[in-house]
Amino acid sequence: MNKIHNYSAGPCILPQEVFEQAANSINNFNNTNLSLIEISHRSNDFIEVMEEARSLVKELLNIPDGYTVLFLQGGASLGFLTTAYNMMRSNKTGGYIVTGAWAKKAAKEADFVGQKKILASSEDANFNYIPKNYKVPSDIDYLHLTSNNTIFGTQIKEFPTSNTPLVCDMSSDIFSKKIDVSSFDLIYAGAQKNMGPAGTTLYIVKDEIIGKSSVSIPTMLDLKTHADKDSMFNTPPVFAIYTSMLTLQWLKGNGGLDWIENRNNNKANLIYSEIDRNSLFNGTAEIEDRSNMNATFTLNNEALKEQFDSMILSANISGLKGHRSVGGYRASMYNALPLESVQILVDVMKELEVKFG
Amino acid sequence: MNKIHNYSAGPCILPQEVFEQAANSINNFNNTNLSLIEISHRSNDFIEVMEEARSLVKELLNIPDGYTVLFLQGGASLGFLTTAYNMMRSNKTGGYIVTGAWAKKAAKEADFVGQKKILASSEDANFNYIPKNYKVPSDIDYLHLTSNNTIFGTQIKEFPTSNTPLVCDMSSDIFSKKIDVSSFDLIYAGAQKNMGPAGTTLYIVKDEIIGKSSVSIPTMLDLKTHADKDSMFNTPPVFAIYTSMLTLQWLKGNGGLDWIENRNNNKANLIYSEIDRNSLFNGTAEIEDRSNMNATFTLNNEALKEQFDSMILSANISGLKGHRSVGGYRASMYNALPLESVQILVDVMKELEVKFG
Repeated sequence: MNKIHNYSAGPCILPQEVFEQAANSINNFNNTNLSLIEISHRSNDFIEVMEEARSLVKELLNIPDGYTVLFLQGGASLGFLTTAYNMMRSNKTGGYIVTGAWAKKAAKEADFVGQKKILASSEDANFNYIPKNYKVPSDIDYLHLTSNNTIFGTQIKEFPTSNTPLVCDMSSDIFSKKIDVSSFDLIYAGAQKNMGPAGTTLYIVKDEIIGKSSVSIPTMLDLKTHADKDSMFNTPPVFAIYTSMLTLQWLKGNGGLDWIENRNNNKANLIYSEIDRNSLFNGTAEIEDRSNMNATFTLNNEALKEQFDSMILSANISGLKGHRSVGGYRASMYNALPLESVQILVDVMKELEVKFG
Repeated sequence: MNKIHNYSAGPCILPQEVFEQAANSINNFNNTNLSLIEISHRSNDFIEVMEEARSLVKELLNIPDGYTVLFLQGGASLGFLTTAYNMMRSNKTGGYIVTGAWAKKAAKEADFVGQKKILASSEDANFNYIPKNYKVPSDIDYLHLTSNNTIFGTQIKEFPTSNTPLVCDMSSDIFSKKIDVSSFDLIYAGAQKNMGPAGTTLYIVKDEIIGKSSVSIPTMLDLKTHADKDSMFNTPPVFAIYTSMLTLQWLKGNGGLDWIENRNNNKANLIYSEIDRNSLFNGTAEIEDRSNMNATFTLNNEALKEQFDSMILSANISGLKGHRSVGGYRASMYNALPLESVQILVDVMKELEVKFG
């Protein structure tokens, strides 16, 4: 069969060698003659997996001392609540920058724990830009950001600086480029974009914040619970963590964040150049806020939809349909997507212009 | 290599054909030339998996109309909190029967939402029996049970009847025998014993209870959130659900709960007969409350430990070590463990007696 160019917005493409290694582990893990998924999570074999995964996160992101890495469950959606519980202080108020549907959902959960303040929002323009130059008031306990907005194709290029503790949902761009972890008090990210399969959620927690909440926290939502038990308070999602470890090994083996940042820039430049050059297409996000992970674009002439969709299909391009709230197309170019797949898409866009432009 | 007799207490043995099918799906799912873990959870291919898994749960457990099946995240540990949030009514009080470490943890979470009443506990005898003949007061909103206690090797053989809504954590014995789901308002169970790999948690929810809580519920802990979205509110743990579906297909294909109940009874009879017959061993749980899933036992003479451990190892028996709070040995005989594996263990016990008895 032909290779599929997988533009799925998440869960999404992972490296081919990761699929092979993960499949092998299901049949026979570490030559134990047991499957990865039938061994105890308290066995030395799995503890080594957990520790290597945590250690790779620290190494790849160059995380300074004083941070704890956890692999939990529940997705960023549960992270919205966990964040509010753990970050509330004397003001019992979280400040939120609403840059998309997920940021909005994050803000909502603050109301169950304390209250939220929306400091800025781009909802007025269907989230096609990242608000900037907003004021960070002194009466909030933390500032919550969403670094990349998959649905709308925008990404924060420069994080704001203030004295307020910074929290960021990095679900869709973590490990795609270098970041300065020391600027953040809490980072969380669902695995299912650049890190691994669906089923685990990464937390990078500044140790100083643990145990400082002004509210009482249920056991499983208290980051202290998990930090105290080295991310093994209860049975972890074994397969998702193992496969994340494999993906991080792949990233390290290829050159780490320097390498992937350059590769992702090249992919983004290739698609955005074509969107801007080609008379048949329009980008939907403001140029300066364009995401390197998800390029969103529409056809100028909807009458060409059938032709374009058919050409995409013939080129074995999968997962390009835009989210219903934006329409058009979305090219999700997560870490494992090769430049060649973007070139194939660009070729199809050019071909459409030649035929119908 | 020789076959391992896997007595792991969970995650635990699953059927060999499930390992093979799960591994194949990682390399090429449904002949899509894509991996199971790189496709969108909104794709038809995965929606079919989710729906088949939900439907198999209903079919195998003979669930009547008026119940919704969900596959969520967080393990039973998050279920403790979810239960309290969803089941609190005007009394804001949950009643708990404390039959082990997990039951105790379940009760603790009620305090974050309302309050708990401990109606009975077997902690006085290190949880070696199931309390019975306790009174169910009228001022509680629900009665919470733990059907099987993996650490202590006890199991509820007959569920109490009352007018109080019944909630049960069935993590370690669901799908091991027939149950009458209509007696319960809420059943939840981590997958990693009889149902699948770690990483998803089954909820069987009586529709009547949804939206009836007396407290405000955070989005992800509200069962209504997930029921309204057919268990797809946020990205589900794809691999864990798919592999659970495969395991349930295996169970159905072999004859369902009638078949497995008989098989589990045979395994339990074999091991308990030997524990009672063999002069070197003692069972730790009260006979009438013995678990068909986890048989806990000790050596009468600790001096034989080295010999027994060495013979176990030679017989390729894995995961037999007891939990530190009970000591001795624990033979976890979940659904996929064949009778032959129990026979091997019994043979080793007999051999020890012949040599040292």
